[in-house]
Amino acid sequence: MSELKVGFIGLGIMGKPMSKNLVRAGFPVTVYNRSKPAVEELVAFGAKAAGSCREVAEQSDVVITIVSDTPDVLQVMTGSGGVLEGTREGLICADMSTISPKATRELAEEAARRGVETLDAPVSGGEKGAIEGTLSIMVGGEQAAFEKCLPVFQAMGKKIVRIGGHGDGQTCKLCNQIVGALNMLGLAEALVFGQKSGIDLEKMLEVVGGGAAASWAVQNLGPKVIKRDFEPGFMVTLQQKDMRLVLGAAEEIKLPTLASGLVHQLWKQNEADDQGRKGIQALVLALEKLTGVTVGE
Amino acid sequence: MSELKVGFIGLGIMGKPMSKNLVRAGFPVTVYNRSKPAVEELVAFGAKAAGSCREVAEQSDVVITIVSDTPDVLQVMTGSGGVLEGTREGLICADMSTISPKATRELAEEAARRGVETLDAPVSGGEKGAIEGTLSIMVGGEQAAFEKCLPVFQAMGKKIVRIGGHGDGQTCKLCNQIVGALNMLGLAEALVFGQKSGIDLEKMLEVVGGGAAASWAVQNLGPKVIKRDFEPGFMVTLQQKDMRLVLGAAEEIKLPTLASGLVHQLWKQNEADDQGRKGIQALVLALEKLTGVTVGE
Repeated sequence: MSELKVGFIGLGIMGKPMSKNLVRAGFPVTVYNRSKPAVEELVAFGAKAAGSCREVAEQSDVVITIVSDTPDVLQVMTGSGGVLEGTREGLICADMSTISPKATRELAEEAARRGVETLDAPVSGGEKGAIEGTLSIMVGGEQAAFEKCLPVFQAMGKKIVRIGGHGDGQTCKLCNQIVGALNMLGLAEALVFGQKSGIDLEKMLEVVGGGAAASWAVQNLGPKVIKRDFEPGFMVTLQQKDMRLVLGAAEEIKLPTLASGLVHQLWKQNEADDQGRKGIQALVLALEKLTGVTVGE
Repeated sequence: MSELKVGFIGLGIMGKPMSKNLVRAGFPVTVYNRSKPAVEELVAFGAKAAGSCREVAEQSDVVITIVSDTPDVLQVMTGSGGVLEGTREGLICADMSTISPKATRELAEEAARRGVETLDAPVSGGEKGAIEGTLSIMVGGEQAAFEKCLPVFQAMGKKIVRIGGHGDGQTCKLCNQIVGALNMLGLAEALVFGQKSGIDLEKMLEVVGGGAAASWAVQNLGPKVIKRDFEPGFMVTLQQKDMRLVLGAAEEIKLPTLASGLVHQLWKQNEADDQGRKGIQALVLALEKLTGVTVGE
């Protein structure tokens, strides 16, 4: 299966290590990226450079895109010099960005009219998962296209699940972001409550992390907050982009999302306070600002 | 250390299996409970029955209480025929109920005036943890009293941590309940969002449970909701009693708790709809009522 020629568009924090893992796995990889240093790095690593998204498509069986947001994917795919200008029957485009499920379905229809199959395949696991090739990949689209791309996904991820049809991978990713956001909010409120009540927060996290309130957030982000470490594993701005996708998708299906709305509003204070490039655990800083409590002092 | 004579007051869902584990571990155990069938069961199991809380105290080195709420503990301890009428120098009272941290500190002072040491030692892990002897126990009080009681706690729990002084065990338990409540809310909102969006929720839980949004709730309560299983592991009424303790303690320290407030209000709809005896995953039923969505159909 490694004869599949893979195109890769978007060499950011995630895309760079992911494309390197494809080169490592033996796929012939053609890359495109707006800024050139990342392209040069990949070429030195064994990839080929293309001059446009269209050229990537012309030289590939599978084109992976992983860019920032919905408009970026639309530009890369349907814009001038974009992927859909270089397509032919049998091409599969797998978008691993996190974008709107609705836009994903619309793009799938447009691509299908040109004989191109698409998959949505957003990921979870952050830069660490991208580097280590241990991402979770949530896939939407046809089973046959999924199976054809599976070896490509397996070079980048560990848990790879086809959720359903077009857009369902994106919806699953948004569910993931809802749960993760609320886990963080619970942790933040407990830390502020525990701090103001005067208890030992390290011991608190030890007990809470071992029982029915356990979460990845308690175990991984809790200790960071206590040490006042707000370096990003996953940045507030990116989480907020995802929360806006959640709220936008919820708007489309006319669903109130009380909890997602609340945590989104609190992270907005991080954005207002120029803390958008901190990790999502900076949510605690918004609660601290409101309450005058400082966690971990 | 098993020469410690242990008194046990409160043979409810938690207290009955916990006291049995003490008998199993070889402690001489004297029990008291308002309703008598549980007492008879424990006597048949090898415990001794006492006629009052006072009598329990007179025959014990350590008295464990595990009853419903703050007023029940105060009644058992300071009421007529209560533990503090039967006290003497050297007695230790360990309250394993979940009650107000402030009342706990006040009770500790009152007991100290009569030469009685107290510990607050609320637990997490539910009926299952009580039966299997794998509870988490969060202890507040003096180190010496903690060490003296440790063998007793070890017969009932696995993770036993002294958090700090009087009341700190209770505060830690409330932190635990805040985190667990918000984990449940995130899960509930994601399930409703995923359902209305039309994705396969089982696959969604599989992916979400394996990454940075993972929680005990996603792994244990998510599958129950999808199967429409609202049987209690932990009941809404008890969670709400704990949320009222959270909000009461937050009121005392003048701390806004936006997130705990929200989830408490939603569980109130369960209470209003006569769903208080369902498990805390019934939170989904409140969101379903609001939105008209039915998860898992």
